[in-house]
Amino acid sequence: MRLLLNHPQVEIKQATSRSHLGEYVYQVHPNLRKRTQLKFSDPAQLEPVDVLLLAQPHGQAQHNIDQFESLAGKIIDLSADFRLRDATDYQRWYGEPHAAPAWLGKFVYVLPELRRSEIANANYVSGVGCNATASNLALLPLVKAGLIDLNAPTIIEIKVGSSESGAEGNSGSLHAERANVIRTFSAFGHRHTAEVIQELGLKDVSLTMTAVDLVRGVLATAHARVKPGVAMKDLWKAYRAVANENCFVRIVKEQRGIYRVPEPKILAGSNYADLGFDLDESSGHIVSMCAIDNLMKGASGTAVQCMNLMLGLDETTALEFAGLHPL
Amino acid sequence: MRLLLNHPQVEIKQATSRSHLGEYVYQVHPNLRKRTQLKFSDPAQLEPVDVLLLAQPHGQAQHNIDQFESLAGKIIDLSADFRLRDATDYQRWYGEPHAAPAWLGKFVYVLPELRRSEIANANYVSGVGCNATASNLALLPLVKAGLIDLNAPTIIEIKVGSSESGAEGNSGSLHAERANVIRTFSAFGHRHTAEVIQELGLKDVSLTMTAVDLVRGVLATAHARVKPGVAMKDLWKAYRAVANENCFVRIVKEQRGIYRVPEPKILAGSNYADLGFDLDESSGHIVSMCAIDNLMKGASGTAVQCMNLMLGLDETTALEFAGLHPL
Amino acid sequence: MRLLLNHPQVEIKQATSRSHLGEYVYQVHPNLRKRTQLKFSDPAQLEPVDVLLLAQPHGQAQHNIDQFESLAGKIIDLSADFRLRDATDYQRWYGEPHAAPAWLGKFVYVLPELRRSEIANANYVSGVGCNATASNLALLPLVKAGLIDLNAPTIIEIKVGSSESGAEGNSGSLHAERANVIRTFSAFGHRHTAEVIQELGLKDVSLTMTAVDLVRGVLATAHARVKPGVAMKDLWKAYRAVANENCFVRIVKEQRGIYRVPEPKILAGSNYADLGFDLDESSGHIVSMCAIDNLMKGASGTAVQCMNLMLGLDETTALEFAGLHPL
Amino acid sequence: MRLLLNHPQVEIKQATSRSHLGEYVYQVHPNLRKRTQLKFSDPAQLEPVDVLLLAQPHGQAQHNIDQFESLAGKIIDLSADFRLRDATDYQRWYGEPHAAPAWLGKFVYVLPELRRSEIANANYVSGVGCNATASNLALLPLVKAGLIDLNAPTIIEIKVGSSESGAEGNSGSLHAERANVIRTFSAFGHRHTAEVIQELGLKDVSLTMTAVDLVRGVLATAHARVKPGVAMKDLWKAYRAVANENCFVRIVKEQRGIYRVPEPKILAGSNYADLGFDLDESSGHIVSMCAIDNLMKGASGTAVQCMNLMLGLDETTALEFAGLHPL
Repeated sequence: MRLLLNHPQVEIKQATSRSHLGEYVYQVHPNLRKRTQLKFSDPAQLEPVDVLLLAQPHGQAQHNIDQFESLAGKIIDLSADFRLRDATDYQRWYGEPHAAPAWLGKFVYVLPELRRSEIANANYVSGVGCNATASNLALLPLVKAGLIDLNAPTIIEIKVGSSESGAEGNSGSLHAERANVIRTFSAFGHRHTAEVIQELGLKDVSLTMTAVDLVRGVLATAHARVKPGVAMKDLWKAYRAVANENCFVRIVKEQRGIYRVPEPKILAGSNYADLGFDLDESSGHIVSMCAIDNLMKGASGTAVQCMNLMLGLDETTALEFAGLHPL
Repeated sequence: MRLLLNHPQVEIKQATSRSHLGEYVYQVHPNLRKRTQLKFSDPAQLEPVDVLLLAQPHGQAQHNIDQFESLAGKIIDLSADFRLRDATDYQRWYGEPHAAPAWLGKFVYVLPELRRSEIANANYVSGVGCNATASNLALLPLVKAGLIDLNAPTIIEIKVGSSESGAEGNSGSLHAERANVIRTFSAFGHRHTAEVIQELGLKDVSLTMTAVDLVRGVLATAHARVKPGVAMKDLWKAYRAVANENCFVRIVKEQRGIYRVPEPKILAGSNYADLGFDLDESSGHIVSMCAIDNLMKGASGTAVQCMNLMLGLDETTALEFAGLHPL
Repeated sequence: MRLLLNHPQVEIKQATSRSHLGEYVYQVHPNLRKRTQLKFSDPAQLEPVDVLLLAQPHGQAQHNIDQFESLAGKIIDLSADFRLRDATDYQRWYGEPHAAPAWLGKFVYVLPELRRSEIANANYVSGVGCNATASNLALLPLVKAGLIDLNAPTIIEIKVGSSESGAEGNSGSLHAERANVIRTFSAFGHRHTAEVIQELGLKDVSLTMTAVDLVRGVLATAHARVKPGVAMKDLWKAYRAVANENCFVRIVKEQRGIYRVPEPKILAGSNYADLGFDLDESSGHIVSMCAIDNLMKGASGTAVQCMNLMLGLDETTALEFAGLHPL
Repeated sequence: MRLLLNHPQVEIKQATSRSHLGEYVYQVHPNLRKRTQLKFSDPAQLEPVDVLLLAQPHGQAQHNIDQFESLAGKIIDLSADFRLRDATDYQRWYGEPHAAPAWLGKFVYVLPELRRSEIANANYVSGVGCNATASNLALLPLVKAGLIDLNAPTIIEIKVGSSESGAEGNSGSLHAERANVIRTFSAFGHRHTAEVIQELGLKDVSLTMTAVDLVRGVLATAHARVKPGVAMKDLWKAYRAVANENCFVRIVKEQRGIYRVPEPKILAGSNYADLGFDLDESSGHIVSMCAIDNLMKGASGTAVQCMNLMLGLDETTALEFAGLHPL
């Protein structure tokens, strides 16, 4: 919402909400007070638009996608409904059959760093899982440069803030329980694993999820094996190539100072993905890190980035905020 | 629960819970794993005991107090139901008539530092409001020594952690909303004000409540006026007298080091109330502070302290934990 | 730094630093990576500029102000050196004589909400104390509308995050000691009090400072007395007038939702000052709150706002960031 | 200090400190106010004792060990000086030759869960690295039961609070920089790795260290491979065996509730090590977790536990505190 209000070339026609119907947007997002007088309108009253951004709970968009198609030529769905190309995969990871399997092939999975050219021509684009994005970007330089041993086990340890669990929450999301945690809430089987397998073609990959005391931010720490003979200089080359080709990718690998490695906290509100890495040359064990703001690069930031590409705008439009330090 | 499991002279007969019926106590309070195999039992199956501790939501005990009386000779009620002596006051502050006004006079309001001798002979004792306790103890030395101007406005600024809002919570209690807050959720009219008026006899007192990012802990900062001529040495004498008479009261007023003033965080799990003060001699404006753990001195710690007194045990039994540093 | 890099009409000529000499700015402020290749240069090598922003430790600028005058026609000093108009006041609050008392009268104290028209014509402008700013803005509507009893004691309870203590810190600033605190580190006598007295003309005002667990943000809660007969409608009128005249002032006073009162956390990175208030009509006791980001509206944000005014630019230039929610 | 003050069978003769010489212990550890009038004395004035606990910075005890030997029949050294049995290993991991290599063989590495019987007869006992302890205990059930593939890579992802970095800290330890972090400050080569290799006999093990926003607590998440055919029931048997034999080891593996996995926060101040695990039966990838309080089970708690064993006291003496919930 913040991004689109600032967007110099896009106008918000409607923001819909069932639970906040009739309220001012700034009552829910208090940072937007004095920035907009927009009120949340009824989803049933949705009017035709050029681009429709869907941010419903998982499992809903697939039931109404035909209706949405009639309202907008371009759709960006931020839910998990159209992320996987294969209906069998969907059933395996989400536990029930997909309601609109024919639509799966029409959607492009949107991570621009992986498929920028496809997005520019797409009408239906699926948003990304935040943990999948951190994982995919951590491994992208290795996969793209062919440095990774695709058959060796890849273990991705992901540390996440509380904004990942959404606006509803549960008893474990209450501050008194959620503060101060280091809680490995999922050792195996997180649904975003499917997006890493699909996009990177890894055979043996696992995501382990640990909640820590932070609101916005994800750090993915990927443990992989490089092919024999790969040295630090090869890695620098591979990471630099990705950073050079992608305006929102940066390498953080300093020898001094406080901020030597990627750090999600300084990315709050920004669309950057900060990458870092280290190699144990004796064993070929590489640790590759990616820090993002899960609500930006891991969700709405990437959605706006894709919208910009779909509309032929500059990729960074409305995504210029640099993040804060200290924070 | 932790306190009673550790209590060398008291045996827990039953712990009841509707929402956790049949669960092990350690499933809800994970620190007690390997310490007890007790399960939560049905409140409807309550059996006679020597001492009954009630920790129901406000407004319930007053409806069942006759039944509870038949089960236990001594009752300690941690809710707000029997804190106020006057049914009119109850209606004014709690918004509805009291269901068992005849019982109000039978209960003693329990803060031992105010009414230790009464508690020893009482059978029915009411627990304390955590914010009222911090406020009452902040002002106790001034009131007891007659140093305070009872007619001048007394403003008590109270900063609280998230454990005050109970196990249920609301949307504002979710970590993503509650973390990092400095939220003045009540400028006037907090119900605990009634306990300060009743116990200290102040005429013009207000409590302003601000939530901050902490789980356990309260700091009450009381702004009052001393009578003309009162100097620092009078204050030292008054505070020292209270600290000397009360095993759980300490004075924190250092000239050096990190911990110069009362600090709730180091009190987590302990029953101490740490007091500090400073005086503007030119105006007579005194700032008096009291830090407590709201779940200990502000609730169950004081309840156990009273139970000890009621049973003729040493006042500090099961309350020996010193708190942690760092934390 | 972030603000000036984004400033569309101002170019940064130099950023000087002794301790980080030769380092990239982004090594110290990691959010600025890929945004600037600027390096910190030697303060001794300062070259002439149109506007000079000074952000030295307190007590330094007054010794070099003549040299700085020769380098820039317009100077904005963010330290405390030129905030007080009276050299006697300076000595009283800062404990030593001022080194350049003749310069005190040449500087304008910059809070635009108090002296916008003066700033537009000023060449030498002094920055604001963050706590003074929160205090001054909390009381501004009352003072401006003449609703406050200037003779009654005004007590301002200020809660602050850790970024107030600067980049150096001390042993009490270490995370293990500073986390989870509610630490009233100053009951009376904070130096920013002088700025409140000077700017608002209050006779009996005290600032009480409490550190809480947050990095960026200040909440000032001012307790004052309104004149007899002042009612809520008068307050609404007074606050609305200030909010209408000042682009960065907002009123937050909602009946529902999570964000009913000013909350510093959602202001991180923004230049807004959010005001709220509540009145006890029976006593005339008013609680007036102001939340700001101490590093923005309380320091560099106000400095940029003044620079814009001094240069005849739009007041909000480079200050458009709306803040984040959740955070 | 807290533990020994509570120890019913041990008397503290002296507590020495150079930096706090002459100060009351409670001025540094404010939780101990009203618990002891002990002052810090001069290390140069150390008098003979039965048991000497050394808690100096790493690298010091090895220079004075002969002097210490003359003062005490039993020594427990909490530094890293005598953890490794092999002087070559010491040089490799600590970067300089050991000053008293002959003493390395006289010290027993103290983790009681690994070498309880040896400790009972030892006079010189070395403390443990906190991260090594969490790692060793996470893997102990697998190693002891012979279920782990010792040749497969073992990756231990360790998340730590800020109390690990000691009382001195550095610029990165300041609250404004250290709050909200997810900072992987060491991908490879942490010195505690040597203790894991030495004690468990693993061939290919790496520790990756990530700082998170917490004061006390460590969670080690070990990723290993079990031998072919190992199933969940084998794991349950192995973990239960270790929990049954060790009073401070607990298994946390629940299907419901908030606390389903080991969680360091509820262990603050307690000596428990909570273990959890999960197995991907298709690949043999096991995730084994251990949560401890780094200052207790990871340092002084284990030291007191060893002291109890060395003195023939009950192993849990002075270590009874159960931890807090909520926190």
